[in-house]
Amino acid sequence: MICNNLGINEKGHLTFAGHDTVDLAEKYQTPAYIMDENKIREKCRIYKKAMSEFFGGNSMPLFASKSLCFKRIYEIMKEEEMGIDVVSPGELYTAVKAGFPMERAYFHGNNKTDFDIAFAIENGIGYFVCDNVEELDAIDREAGNKGIKQKIILRLTPGIDPHTHAKISTGNVDSKFGAAIETGQAKELVELALSKKNIALMGYHCHIGSQIFEYDPFCDAAVIMIKFIADMKTELGFEASVLNLGGGMGVKYVESDPEIDYAKNIEGIADLVKSECAKLGVTMPTILMEPGRSIVADAGLTLYTAGTRKEIKGFKNYVSIDGGMPDNPRYALYQSAYTVMVANKANEEADYECTIAGRCCESGDLIQEGVKIPKPERGDTIAVLTTGAYNFAMSSNYNAICKPPVIMLDGEKDYVAVKRESFDDLIARQV
Amino acid sequence: MICNNLGINEKGHLTFAGHDTVDLAEKYQTPAYIMDENKIREKCRIYKKAMSEFFGGNSMPLFASKSLCFKRIYEIMKEEEMGIDVVSPGELYTAVKAGFPMERAYFHGNNKTDFDIAFAIENGIGYFVCDNVEELDAIDREAGNKGIKQKIILRLTPGIDPHTHAKISTGNVDSKFGAAIETGQAKELVELALSKKNIALMGYHCHIGSQIFEYDPFCDAAVIMIKFIADMKTELGFEASVLNLGGGMGVKYVESDPEIDYAKNIEGIADLVKSECAKLGVTMPTILMEPGRSIVADAGLTLYTAGTRKEIKGFKNYVSIDGGMPDNPRYALYQSAYTVMVANKANEEADYECTIAGRCCESGDLIQEGVKIPKPERGDTIAVLTTGAYNFAMSSNYNAICKPPVIMLDGEKDYVAVKRESFDDLIARQV
Repeated sequence: MICNNLGINEKGHLTFAGHDTVDLAEKYQTPAYIMDENKIREKCRIYKKAMSEFFGGNSMPLFASKSLCFKRIYEIMKEEEMGIDVVSPGELYTAVKAGFPMERAYFHGNNKTDFDIAFAIENGIGYFVCDNVEELDAIDREAGNKGIKQKIILRLTPGIDPHTHAKISTGNVDSKFGAAIETGQAKELVELALSKKNIALMGYHCHIGSQIFEYDPFCDAAVIMIKFIADMKTELGFEASVLNLGGGMGVKYVESDPEIDYAKNIEGIADLVKSECAKLGVTMPTILMEPGRSIVADAGLTLYTAGTRKEIKGFKNYVSIDGGMPDNPRYALYQSAYTVMVANKANEEADYECTIAGRCCESGDLIQEGVKIPKPERGDTIAVLTTGAYNFAMSSNYNAICKPPVIMLDGEKDYVAVKRESFDDLIARQV
Repeated sequence: MICNNLGINEKGHLTFAGHDTVDLAEKYQTPAYIMDENKIREKCRIYKKAMSEFFGGNSMPLFASKSLCFKRIYEIMKEEEMGIDVVSPGELYTAVKAGFPMERAYFHGNNKTDFDIAFAIENGIGYFVCDNVEELDAIDREAGNKGIKQKIILRLTPGIDPHTHAKISTGNVDSKFGAAIETGQAKELVELALSKKNIALMGYHCHIGSQIFEYDPFCDAAVIMIKFIADMKTELGFEASVLNLGGGMGVKYVESDPEIDYAKNIEGIADLVKSECAKLGVTMPTILMEPGRSIVADAGLTLYTAGTRKEIKGFKNYVSIDGGMPDNPRYALYQSAYTVMVANKANEEADYECTIAGRCCESGDLIQEGVKIPKPERGDTIAVLTTGAYNFAMSSNYNAICKPPVIMLDGEKDYVAVKRESFDDLIARQV
């Protein structure tokens, strides 16, 4: 099993957080997103403890909301005393409605509108992660209008290629995000930020990409960022007190993925940060990180019902499910790997090779190709594992398909965090 | 201009269906989908007229709802006396709510659930486009329960490769759709359908793919399908009275795309169908086609507001907009080509090369790379053309971004067909 919240019970059914997934499918119908609340809390605590222990001071993880955003998640993040990052007024609004303390919220994004900035300041956003000159001007102006001094950190690109999928690699110089250190534009942005009356520049941010299994890219980025802190101290007399190293630690989706020891990674990065700071005569800053996927991915799985099984003689086999790219577009977008199981045949031999196809009227609507599972029948429960991140968050209504509910598991309890979309919900905004 | 509903007015602003797009952006805010109702009607009439004239009888186009599905569209399709195809109970429900006559509706899809089938029969669906054996059994059972004889056609794969994008090519033998003629599975399905008490088999369906500019693949498919009709007549004594040739005719997205004369294509296919039928001694069937993209694509454009302009010295330029992959995932999914204009600078020289980036916290959130437009400033109106198909239909709430409204233009009138999503809509199902 790829995560310790998975098991098989005496009926031969897949269990998740101790619950029989076949029973869950029957109770809540399919497709349904199932989330293990305690796994989310466990991951938060691993990050919280390691960052506090190894970095010290006020260092803390910020949950990257874009990976999974609904009210209950922000309540859990509040209870776990996490920070959060948000990337839109919609995420910010959801967090506010959940009662999340906004002083621990960081507003991200490459293109914040004037509305977004004003809305965030009105709602007491802690920090902006400021991306560019135009935004700096807009934040200064809006903060002036509100009569406050707004804390920000600057998003910089360290020029690191983390060897991940191009679409989710963000630390390169030619990224749409941030200002490049290499081109001198980062320094220009620092100078400008320091000149703004209504802005309090606190430090820097970098993010090198997503689903990174190697350890080195994070260390490389940290070295570049601390060097930049030292350079700005020397050149401009400004010593950053906050350094946000972003997110991106990988998650085990399939057996062949390595297991990551997040605490050990953090310890290693902390050792390097400390020694670099000492070497360059820089005061150790407050370190922030932004885990999203690694907090929620393996706290989630999706349950489907098998429909058509199609065997094209001499070609391939398809098993169709009652969901697909509307609830999980990641294979269509990135050819992302997933582990698939037949939940009611978890003990049977996985000797049937097939493609798991969604129900959309589109050839690219596949969840995974060439998986081996026990041969499923119409009505079997299909589980796609590790769907806690970027599934609900990316879901669409393509083919006018209703979005699945999000069901939370907490010990022996199970409860609805997001209701299933109805047909009337689908047409609610249609005149 | 790539479509005749585009123009430039005396202010140098882009016009669409005679409306100043800069005024529309101000009135409705951005991002917003804008639709030219009369272009939709014009395209319907081109298909209707050509199919009636060249194929004769009851031959008609069915609008492929998956390309654009909301109530107002079905009202227009009803008024234009089009048929429709639907691919989910959500599309079917929307059509019913719009008062569309369901006897002209065809239910598609590779994985209809028992619920879908029962729901469609209850709502008086005209035909199922039956995909496979399990579905045939389910339709027969549900029709029996309701005491009716249900009309169906069978989805077959003719084994045609239309040289289009792999993700939107569907006529290959190894497609997830239909039964392959080549493997003998199509004939088995016909035999089974003929044996079912509660099923009236009317004919066959094929669909070879999308965004096809060549003429030959459609002719190749027609030849194979008519041969199959003749073979089944000889071998099983069953002569099909309906042949659905699917959709897939291309649309001009950029200047380098060819212009398609749909009526002329239909005339050419009709000539071939008639001569093949005559040659093989087959009665000319009722011909159906399923245009979606070619009905609505160039009847739509999306208006955005430019935000950040980022020039990375020695690398590239980015222009960020206030939308992106949540409202248009097609570049992220297929690297689809689009024409981009600065609506308030439509007369100015297009000499600024840049990438149009969305506002999502994801590197792959791009609308187009390497376009040439007049250099935009923050606040300019950006128009992405030809977004009428598969934009609204595929839209998501990624990054908790609210979905744009759909604004219809009809002569001098403009009206809201789908309201902009609010923050409260976003969290409405969250407990």
